[in-house]
Amino acid sequence: MSDPRETGTDLSPKFDANGLLTAVVTDADSGEVLMVAHMNADALALTLQGGEAVFWSRSRARLWKKGETSGHVLRVVEARIDCDQDAVWLRCTPAGPSCHTGRTSCFYRRIEDGALTFTA
Amino acid sequence: MSDPRETGTDLSPKFDANGLLTAVVTDADSGEVLMVAHMNADALALTLQGGEAVFWSRSRARLWKKGETSGHVLRVVEARIDCDQDAVWLRCTPAGPSCHTGRTSCFYRRIEDGALTFTA
Repeated sequence: MSDPRETGTDLSPKFDANGLLTAVVTDADSGEVLMVAHMNADALALTLQGGEAVFWSRSRARLWKKGETSGHVLRVVEARIDCDQDAVWLRCTPAGPSCHTGRTSCFYRRIEDGALTFTA
Repeated sequence: MSDPRETGTDLSPKFDANGLLTAVVTDADSGEVLMVAHMNADALALTLQGGEAVFWSRSRARLWKKGETSGHVLRVVEARIDCDQDAVWLRCTPAGPSCHTGRTSCFYRRIEDGALTFTA
């Protein structure tokens, strides 16, 4: 029952079959969920070393520093990992909108009665 | 450039190769990220219909209503979906600890200097 991955202090990420973790980004001030993305081992290492979020783009199959073209980087205030170490939570200070649509958060629509409603 | 999945009001989830979405659960009051899990189409439908979170357990390969044994259900206050509709954010009122370790959140360790520190 006592799994050191859950009870210990070693960083031992459990990457999935594609070598990825799930990363959830929230705004460190507002608490709003800004985006969900994925990280491979290199993306995680670069994020922890540099203090700005780097992901693995599944669609482009390459490392992707958030804000590399837009300048809208995500400065990491705190990084947490979950019980089984297959998901990371980054509390960040965003330099601009997190969504490629220009919105603060990618989660700009509410699900209501089987359809979507814009929140802002 | 105008993808109706991103700009429209139709709920059109983009399930991955395994038929899953990523689901992020936050506490509707505190904003804390409680857990990250996955949903197939049935789990999403049951969650939206019943108002309590249902996930797909990858390890057990079955639907898993959070709290089905512990009673620690997650009542959904608001459900949102992201720009490309492959991730869901559930703002919930938890009936008890969300982590199977008994902790409020699965994210009970901070990553610091390459190791983990317990936050509570």
